[in-house]
Amino acid sequence: MREVAIIGIGQTRVGELWELSLRQLGHDAVIAAMQDAGVERADALYVGNMLSGELAGQEHLATLIADFVGLRGIEAAKIEAACASGAAAVRMGYLAVASGLLDVVIAAGVEKMTDTPPDETTAGLALAADQEYEVAEGATFLALNAMLMQRYMHEYGVPHRAFAPFPINAHRNARTNPNAMFHMEITVEKYEKAPVVAPPINILDSSPICDGAAAVVMVPWERAQEFGGRGQRIVRIAASASATDTLAVHDRRDPLFLEAAHLSCHRAYAQAGLSPADIDLFELHDAFSIMSVLSLEACGFAPRGRGVDLGGSGAIALDGKLPLTTMGGLKARGHPVGATGVYQIVELVQQLRGEAGPNQVANAHIGMAQNIGGSGATVITHILIGEE
Amino acid sequence: MREVAIIGIGQTRVGELWELSLRQLGHDAVIAAMQDAGVERADALYVGNMLSGELAGQEHLATLIADFVGLRGIEAAKIEAACASGAAAVRMGYLAVASGLLDVVIAAGVEKMTDTPPDETTAGLALAADQEYEVAEGATFLALNAMLMQRYMHEYGVPHRAFAPFPINAHRNARTNPNAMFHMEITVEKYEKAPVVAPPINILDSSPICDGAAAVVMVPWERAQEFGGRGQRIVRIAASASATDTLAVHDRRDPLFLEAAHLSCHRAYAQAGLSPADIDLFELHDAFSIMSVLSLEACGFAPRGRGVDLGGSGAIALDGKLPLTTMGGLKARGHPVGATGVYQIVELVQQLRGEAGPNQVANAHIGMAQNIGGSGATVITHILIGEE
Repeated sequence: MREVAIIGIGQTRVGELWELSLRQLGHDAVIAAMQDAGVERADALYVGNMLSGELAGQEHLATLIADFVGLRGIEAAKIEAACASGAAAVRMGYLAVASGLLDVVIAAGVEKMTDTPPDETTAGLALAADQEYEVAEGATFLALNAMLMQRYMHEYGVPHRAFAPFPINAHRNARTNPNAMFHMEITVEKYEKAPVVAPPINILDSSPICDGAAAVVMVPWERAQEFGGRGQRIVRIAASASATDTLAVHDRRDPLFLEAAHLSCHRAYAQAGLSPADIDLFELHDAFSIMSVLSLEACGFAPRGRGVDLGGSGAIALDGKLPLTTMGGLKARGHPVGATGVYQIVELVQQLRGEAGPNQVANAHIGMAQNIGGSGATVITHILIGEE
Repeated sequence: MREVAIIGIGQTRVGELWELSLRQLGHDAVIAAMQDAGVERADALYVGNMLSGELAGQEHLATLIADFVGLRGIEAAKIEAACASGAAAVRMGYLAVASGLLDVVIAAGVEKMTDTPPDETTAGLALAADQEYEVAEGATFLALNAMLMQRYMHEYGVPHRAFAPFPINAHRNARTNPNAMFHMEITVEKYEKAPVVAPPINILDSSPICDGAAAVVMVPWERAQEFGGRGQRIVRIAASASATDTLAVHDRRDPLFLEAAHLSCHRAYAQAGLSPADIDLFELHDAFSIMSVLSLEACGFAPRGRGVDLGGSGAIALDGKLPLTTMGGLKARGHPVGATGVYQIVELVQQLRGEAGPNQVANAHIGMAQNIGGSGATVITHILIGEE
C-alpha cells in the first residue's frame, strides 16, 4: 500500500443553516478543501451522508455534489454507516489512494437536518437502529443511550453529575471555534438543572440537530509536496480502521463495553505501531455524554467504570493529558450526523498543523478521531500524525 | 496495487419475494458467495443499496447484514450511487483488496422494492434524479427515459419497433436462468402491442420493480488458490472504472450521448489494455431499451444512431458477436436497483467459469459489465477475465 497524506481541509459553520441547501453545503466544504490543498481537480469524491434520502428526497448525492462543484466526470459515491458515515467516506478515500489507483481523492461529509420538523428528523435518526427489533418496539436513539447511561450509573455507582465535565469541556472549547454551533459556556449548576430529555440524559448530555459539511483532500504521501496549498504542514494518516457490532443493543455480549470501538481502535493502534499513551489528543464521539465515557474505556484510556474519572481529573482539557473534543465536539461544535466524522478529521488536521488558534493543543503531534454509528454498532478510528 | 480475483459468487432469485426480509435477502446472497468461495470469514462487507432507508426505514444496512450473517466485528459500509450502487460496492471492495490492506472482502447488493405500494416505490426511485431541478417539476425516471427515447427516434429517424430485439433477447435468455423473474418469451408482435407506459416507452421496454440480492467474494489474485471453493476457475478483475455526469438530464452537453458511460468504459479499456473488439460478452444496463442502445454507442460498439442496428443484426444473441444480457438482464432477470450491479458481475463470473448452463456463451474469456445510476449520471464499468 501507499502511505496517504491529507493536504487540504474545508468546513462550513455548523448550525441551523436554512439559507444553505444540501448541495450548497457540500459545495462550500469541498471547494474550501480544494483551495486549501491547492488542487483544481480530483479523481474521486466520496460523500458521507446518512439522511439525504429521508429528509431531502435526494439520493445519488455524491454525483450531484461532484457536478455542482465543477468536477463533472470524476468518480463519485455516497457512503453510509449511520452517524459514522463521515469517517467511512474518509476511510474509502484512504483505501482508494492507498491502492495506487487514484491520486487525488476528496472525502466529504454533508448533512442537512433542520429543514424538516424535529419529529421527522428524530424518526430519520432512528433509521440507524434495528428497524425490526428496536424501532418497531418504540426505541429511539435517545432512549437507547438513556438506558446505557442508566445501566452504567447503576453498575458502577456513578452519580449523574460525574458526567458534567464532558459537556462543560466541549462547550468551553467551542467558544473559540468560529464554526461551532454553540458559543456559550456551561457550568456544573447549569448541567444539574438542565431539562431531562430521557432520564437520566438531559439536554446538556445531548448533541444538537444541525446542518454542516466538511471535506478533506487526500493524496499519496510521497507526492504530497507536488501540490500547492499554503505551505502548511502535511498530515499523514497513520492508521484507519473500522469495526462493527450488533445493530441492536440488546444483542450485545455486554452493552456497557463498546466492542466495535475496542476492535476499531486496537486495529488502528496496531497499524500505527502506537498505544493509548502516544495519543496527544482525541476527537471522540460525544453524541451523548455516556458515549464519551464508553469510548474512553473501550480505547484503553481508562479501566471499565472509571472513564468518568478522566473528566473530573482535568485530563480532558486543552492543557490536560488527553485533550478531548478540542473544537467543541459533537456536543458543542454540533453533530450534523453524516458530516461529523469528517469534522473530526478536519479538526485533528488543524491541531496537527498548529492552526487551531486559541484552541491549539501544545505539541500536538499524534491525534486520534473516533466516529461511532448507531449506539456503538459501527466504529471507525483514524490516527493522524503531523509531520515536520 | 495488487491484482484482485473473484473467488465466490452468490445470488437469490429475483422477483416479488414477500416471504424474505431485507436482511434475509442479504444473508442468503452473502452466505452463498462465501460457501462458493470456501471462506468462513471476511475482513469487510460493502453493501450496495439505494432504497432501504426510504422503503424499509432501515439505514446502517451493511452493519446489520454483517451481524446477521455471523460476521460481527468486521468492517461494513453501505455504498449508494442510485441504480449503480451494486457496482459501486464491488468497486469499493476492489479498491480495498487492491490497496493491500484487506484480504477478503465481500461486496453485496440488496434491494427490496415490493413491500411498499408501487407509487411509493416509484417515488423512491426518483430520489436518483435531481430533486430540485427535475423531480420538483414532476419528472419521474420513466419520464426522463421516455424523453430520451423520443429524442433518439426523432434525431435518427428510428422507428419504435427497432428497439424490440433488446427485450426479446433478454426474455429469451431469462427463460433458462432459474434466478430470473420472468421466464416467458416475447415476440415482436407482443412488443408492438404492449401497453404504453410513457410514450414511446411501453411495458416491454421497462425493467420490473422487484426484490433480490447478489454477492461476490474478492481476494488478492496471488492468493486466490489458498482458498477453498469447488475448484472452479478463478476470475480476475482486469478493470474497474467509475465516472459521472450531471444528475439532471437537461444539463448535459448532449442528452443522447452518455458521457459518463463513455468515460467509464474507456477508463476500463485503458486499464485492461483492451478495446471493444476484445469483449466476448457485455452485461449492460437495460433498465429501459433506450439505455441499452445509448450504452452500446457510448462504449464504442456502434456509431451514434446505429446502436439499434446491433439488435436487428442478431449480434446480441448468445451465439452472436456481442452477446448481451446473457442471463436476462435488467429487463427479464429483473432490476432490484441496488443489487443489479452485483448480479451483472455474478453472471459474468458464471459465464467466464463456464457455469452458465444453457445460457453459456461459447469461448467466453473476457466479459464487461456496465451499471448505470440515474439517467446516465453515474456509470461504473468492470472488465473481468476468466483465467485458465
